[in-house]
Amino acid sequence: MTYRTIVDDGNAVIILDQTLLPDTVVERRLVTLEDTVNAISVMQVRGAPLIGVSAAYGVALGLQLSGDDATLEHALATLAATRPTAVNLHWALDRMRRVLAPLPAVARSNAAWSEARAIAAENAATNAAIGRHGLPLLKVRSVHLSPNGAMTNERQPINIMTHCNAGWLATTAHGTALAPIYAAHAKGIKVHVWVSETRPRNQGRLTAWELADAGVPHTLIADNAAGLLMMQGKVDLVIVGADRIAANGDTANKIGTYLKALAAQANSVPFYVAAPRSTIDFVCSDGAGIPIEERNTAELDAGDTPVANPAFDVTPAALIDGIITESGVFAPDALEAIRP
Amino acid sequence: MTYRTIVDDGNAVIILDQTLLPDTVVERRLVTLEDTVNAISVMQVRGAPLIGVSAAYGVALGLQLSGDDATLEHALATLAATRPTAVNLHWALDRMRRVLAPLPAVARSNAAWSEARAIAAENAATNAAIGRHGLPLLKVRSVHLSPNGAMTNERQPINIMTHCNAGWLATTAHGTALAPIYAAHAKGIKVHVWVSETRPRNQGRLTAWELADAGVPHTLIADNAAGLLMMQGKVDLVIVGADRIAANGDTANKIGTYLKALAAQANSVPFYVAAPRSTIDFVCSDGAGIPIEERNTAELDAGDTPVANPAFDVTPAALIDGIITESGVFAPDALEAIRP
Repeated sequence: MTYRTIVDDGNAVIILDQTLLPDTVVERRLVTLEDTVNAISVMQVRGAPLIGVSAAYGVALGLQLSGDDATLEHALATLAATRPTAVNLHWALDRMRRVLAPLPAVARSNAAWSEARAIAAENAATNAAIGRHGLPLLKVRSVHLSPNGAMTNERQPINIMTHCNAGWLATTAHGTALAPIYAAHAKGIKVHVWVSETRPRNQGRLTAWELADAGVPHTLIADNAAGLLMMQGKVDLVIVGADRIAANGDTANKIGTYLKALAAQANSVPFYVAAPRSTIDFVCSDGAGIPIEERNTAELDAGDTPVANPAFDVTPAALIDGIITESGVFAPDALEAIRP
Repeated sequence: MTYRTIVDDGNAVIILDQTLLPDTVVERRLVTLEDTVNAISVMQVRGAPLIGVSAAYGVALGLQLSGDDATLEHALATLAATRPTAVNLHWALDRMRRVLAPLPAVARSNAAWSEARAIAAENAATNAAIGRHGLPLLKVRSVHLSPNGAMTNERQPINIMTHCNAGWLATTAHGTALAPIYAAHAKGIKVHVWVSETRPRNQGRLTAWELADAGVPHTLIADNAAGLLMMQGKVDLVIVGADRIAANGDTANKIGTYLKALAAQANSVPFYVAAPRSTIDFVCSDGAGIPIEERNTAELDAGDTPVANPAFDVTPAALIDGIITESGVFAPDALEAIRP
């Protein structure tokens, strides 16, 4: 990991512009609330955890000139309206409000920077824990798949399929779905990652870029190829991230996740979701209550052709073998145990 | 239908170059066997039925200078090696051999042109019959979906999802999966077609282009969106084409078809395959025997990133409600009834 997705210098927030990756590495300085709103909306920053961190920093930028109530509420409301599906956005904004609202206006700016930095740092630690909790799932499979039956993981890489980008680019460090993969790679467990392109925004290319940077073997595929590869026995495990997990375990994630989950079930491939606990929305009882963002039709670059462009879908809990969090791996119907 | 996918002038075969559609309409003259081999390989002509017709014409072009046995066998073998999955290719070549092999060498060239034209004309008639047999499936759903329970089909369009392009561009006329849709549209039945982009080659854009040309309402989606739309109840019926149907009904079609079939089953959406009987390979007992073409990794335009690019997948017969042929609609386990 040569770059950081988001850092601050006390006056500005510096992000990697993910709309230009992987072809071009450009850092952008966000200096206003509006810069941050735009960065989230156009997906210069993206990935549920990073959206949350960015929103927290956006509040800090919004309070630079004034910490009064109207300014705070304007910042919170404007940032909340950027993207509807990732609940981490609202989680981070709620946390900022809880910390900032009781303070006198003059104290809010410093406190906002401090809390945003805390959220960013906690996300890195959270994801490291997701990696530790997810690692045994890969180790078990790797041993299980050993071709000669011996208790070794040297012979065959474990083949993990992911979707979209839930790597360090989607977070402040480690990633969510990729955290167990990086943890395994660091331990010398042989892994190979099937990376789906993730149309229409091609976030799979971000995943391929960061896996290449980390030296993790991987292969890019069209999203359409996921079912065939599972049918052919070429996938041992699927791990994806999440944008919002309902109380019953139904999980909204990047559009196309549901198709992979169906193929995994049909071919007896374990299907895991990796996400921080802040992604679980206990107010939302099931997936039907999760708002699905409809994005600009221009993302499909189809000229005058009518286009529908939903950005997320919902994978029913019944298709999910486990949810990997910083507190452990939970069956999707057992999330009550970690209700805050 | 303003254009023709393939015609001949007695000396050359004129095709629409589908690698340039829908942005640019260019006709190409194929004057040699090698031109035809290239056109099929690079997908200037594509779609199982059209590949078959093109191969037949390729034999005619290959026999222009000599009709001797070696020339005939060379043409047949070279064309057979172009693409592995679509069985219509082999069906057409077998038919050409049966007609031509018994003839004296000097008679073969004229007979080849004549037989290629016959195959082309029969394909149009076959597909018209597929449209007639498939039409009742759309009419029934349309009535069924009437929101007030009345026996009318005026109020709600029937929403049909397709994949890739199995329209007239994939054939000599009418298409296969689109034939019932065109038949319904011609009768004034309101239809709306969900067109999946079909990465990596984007044949969904060909489908959108020909539906627009015919005035059929349609919406382009990323392949990833198919599951969500079915879960949301926005799809009444799926119809796809086929590149090879095994004797047991397992069906190879464009990569991604299997994912749509899984989503259709999970959401109780009827899933149909439309194909001429020449697409059924009775020698192939089940889908495991169907060769899957692996195409050039450059199709994903991913630079140095490792890529896998299988072009087809296999949808198990159990996921298919019916196979619409020119002889009627058959359950996938009842194809024996139309074994030649």
